[in-house]
Amino acid sequence: MAQKTSIPSGTRDFLPHEMLRRNYIFDTIRNVFKQYGYVPIETPAMENLSTLLGKYGEEGDKLLYRILNSGNAFATVEPSDLANGNLLSAKVCEKGLRYDLTVPFARFVVQHRQDIVFPFKRYQIQPVWRADRPQKGRYREFFQCDADVIGSNSLLNEVELVQMVDDVFTRLNIPITVKINNRKVLSGIAEIMGAADRLTDITVAIDKIDKIGQEAVLNELKDKGISEDAIQQLLPVLALSGTNEEKLTCLSDILAASPIALQGIEELRTIFNYLEILKLRQAVEIDLSLARGLNYYTGAIFEVKAKEVAIGSLCGGGRYDDLTGVFGLKDVSGVGISFGADRIYDVLNTLNRFPEAAMEHTKVLFLNLGMQESIKALECLKEVRAAGISAEIYPETAKMKKQMEYADKKAIPYVIIIGEEELQSNMLSFKDMQSGEQKKSDWATLLQSLLC
Amino acid sequence: MAQKTSIPSGTRDFLPHEMLRRNYIFDTIRNVFKQYGYVPIETPAMENLSTLLGKYGEEGDKLLYRILNSGNAFATVEPSDLANGNLLSAKVCEKGLRYDLTVPFARFVVQHRQDIVFPFKRYQIQPVWRADRPQKGRYREFFQCDADVIGSNSLLNEVELVQMVDDVFTRLNIPITVKINNRKVLSGIAEIMGAADRLTDITVAIDKIDKIGQEAVLNELKDKGISEDAIQQLLPVLALSGTNEEKLTCLSDILAASPIALQGIEELRTIFNYLEILKLRQAVEIDLSLARGLNYYTGAIFEVKAKEVAIGSLCGGGRYDDLTGVFGLKDVSGVGISFGADRIYDVLNTLNRFPEAAMEHTKVLFLNLGMQESIKALECLKEVRAAGISAEIYPETAKMKKQMEYADKKAIPYVIIIGEEELQSNMLSFKDMQSGEQKKSDWATLLQSLLC
Repeated sequence: MAQKTSIPSGTRDFLPHEMLRRNYIFDTIRNVFKQYGYVPIETPAMENLSTLLGKYGEEGDKLLYRILNSGNAFATVEPSDLANGNLLSAKVCEKGLRYDLTVPFARFVVQHRQDIVFPFKRYQIQPVWRADRPQKGRYREFFQCDADVIGSNSLLNEVELVQMVDDVFTRLNIPITVKINNRKVLSGIAEIMGAADRLTDITVAIDKIDKIGQEAVLNELKDKGISEDAIQQLLPVLALSGTNEEKLTCLSDILAASPIALQGIEELRTIFNYLEILKLRQAVEIDLSLARGLNYYTGAIFEVKAKEVAIGSLCGGGRYDDLTGVFGLKDVSGVGISFGADRIYDVLNTLNRFPEAAMEHTKVLFLNLGMQESIKALECLKEVRAAGISAEIYPETAKMKKQMEYADKKAIPYVIIIGEEELQSNMLSFKDMQSGEQKKSDWATLLQSLLC
Repeated sequence: MAQKTSIPSGTRDFLPHEMLRRNYIFDTIRNVFKQYGYVPIETPAMENLSTLLGKYGEEGDKLLYRILNSGNAFATVEPSDLANGNLLSAKVCEKGLRYDLTVPFARFVVQHRQDIVFPFKRYQIQPVWRADRPQKGRYREFFQCDADVIGSNSLLNEVELVQMVDDVFTRLNIPITVKINNRKVLSGIAEIMGAADRLTDITVAIDKIDKIGQEAVLNELKDKGISEDAIQQLLPVLALSGTNEEKLTCLSDILAASPIALQGIEELRTIFNYLEILKLRQAVEIDLSLARGLNYYTGAIFEVKAKEVAIGSLCGGGRYDDLTGVFGLKDVSGVGISFGADRIYDVLNTLNRFPEAAMEHTKVLFLNLGMQESIKALECLKEVRAAGISAEIYPETAKMKKQMEYADKKAIPYVIIIGEEELQSNMLSFKDMQSGEQKKSDWATLLQSLLC
């Protein structure tokens, strides 16, 4: 009996037309990474569980895919081991699938620190796996596209990362807003409120202001036990408006008593000064409600929102001060961004903005109308392909209708017909599949027109 | 305490200089696939074990990486289950990592048969995983680069696959011999010997003729119980020599009594007739000792050997008649090839034939000698990058020596220096890192020279 064909829930096959669209996104991102001097690395899909465990919190550990040891994994398992699933899985699984690209990158930097050039600007485009509950837009296997600089404190890195974001989305023709915040400013706000130890509660609340409004945010803070006095200190921060420059000036006043906040404001000012000179094409704005990955970031925080589609962030990142510490390399600061290819795909699809030119596989199909005809076609094909054009011959000498249908279904824009008549007259028939127009031409002329 | 950094045995990190070399190989292969009208697909790393098990023989099943079910995988395990490791692993693992690209491809074709265009010409470049014993040149994670046509019996497919092999290795500048055999000819030989049921023993023996010589091969056949009479029938086949045309003529005589052999010979003749007209740049020869994947292939069999380096085959493939049958789609013939990227890498390394131009990351580094200087550099960078050139600025305002060392270690060929003097005179300093030559120039002239 035939086996049922299916794939694990939350994973995907990619059909050719999807691959074209995905590759268009990956190639665009990769080309920008390259143009800024970022170099590629790759790490294995499997990492030792000791590398992965404890890096993503308790919830993250549960989402790790574990790989059963090869050979007889259960040889040393005792019946009593069955009582503790966690211990047992540790006994029978030493490896897991990578959960993101960040931890493997940190491991990579430490392991190869003698062989890489610092400041190390690397990019990495690879799949990651999470045993998450699958839902719309959330997969168990998905690609991350990360660029990070490690070993440099300079804010020029932040500036260039924003430039890269600007380049990527301009090339993709997706209008966006880059939102920028700074963890030091957030710390300063908590400090001024006299609630430095409540930083997480405060930022989680601020983060919701767009969704639930100011009053609800203030109530939430009260519920969490933040004092009325402290909340009063927060009000001017929440009321912040105007241009980026105005926001920074205003913040300097409000947070004047916090040295850490002033440092963060100065960092933001430096970044915006550079960006102004560089004349980006996309919008960039300060957004104090941005608090992503708070425990992780120590300086700049970035997030990218599409202007025309309501969807989560298309890209995010920030500066972290101790990525490699857990692997024994202390005091190495880094800053990076990560593009969300799946969301970008959805946005381009929604806006119908995949460029037609990038969606083409084969440019020309030669029909196959017999042995001698196919030989002529193969000779022409050699020349077309040598010119860098994707071209093919229908492999069977099938009916012309069937071959034309193949061109149509495969969205091949041009068809060249070499039949008996064409062989004798040495003039080939050329059909434009979109207009339906058909004309005869000698091969040299035809080849020239294909090259245009 | 810092964690030890290591990766699972048999897996690899790829450093930037390795990535450049690997991408050069993948890009070359991918471009040829594309130019012949093959379209890309991708399948998930994880497949249901029911898809994978039983497809690679008993040994293959043991080499599958199994993934522990998420949640509490051991919840329903009873102490009595521990007695049978196989049953137990089936109970706690439903998914496994793909072992090759062929079985997932077959599953894909059946699953998506309504959405793909037949004849379906697909390529797929993805990693696969095998729990094999790691050794030199054998890894537990490695990439396969496959191209297959499915749903066409035409020998034109075989012809084009050989052309593709010719294109790939010509572009890679690796002289090779493409060896071609046909499973039907092998069946005919066994038939003529009166030992059709001993096909495997016979081909395994013939396969060794280059290594152990004719006499040893004949002895081996005797040891395996093949009769003296049968072996006498084999002698003219082993003595086969001359051009491909001569071999085919001679084979037609020797195997005249076997219809299946004559069919195989006719197939070979058709392929060689086409190839002759197409004037390949690499050698192609009939090799009856070629018997790879015997149980799998039903027509043409291909193998590619490097001429200048003693190493296993760089590419292989053939025709199969029932790839998708196990998944319920009967009588679909296919033919394909698979390139071995790791071996190709080793050959190019040994021959020192990675092209220099493809080995470059960043083309030009702007030194960073201060705030105003860096702003000027960023403005120039915008233009260089817009012209498609990879360029970067040293992120810190470090000592010039340190910045030069960075360019040197990263093998950046050109350095542009913008210091105070350059800012005032509006003439930039340009250093060729290979020759050591340094000159001053205005920016427009410099940009022009970088574009060449």
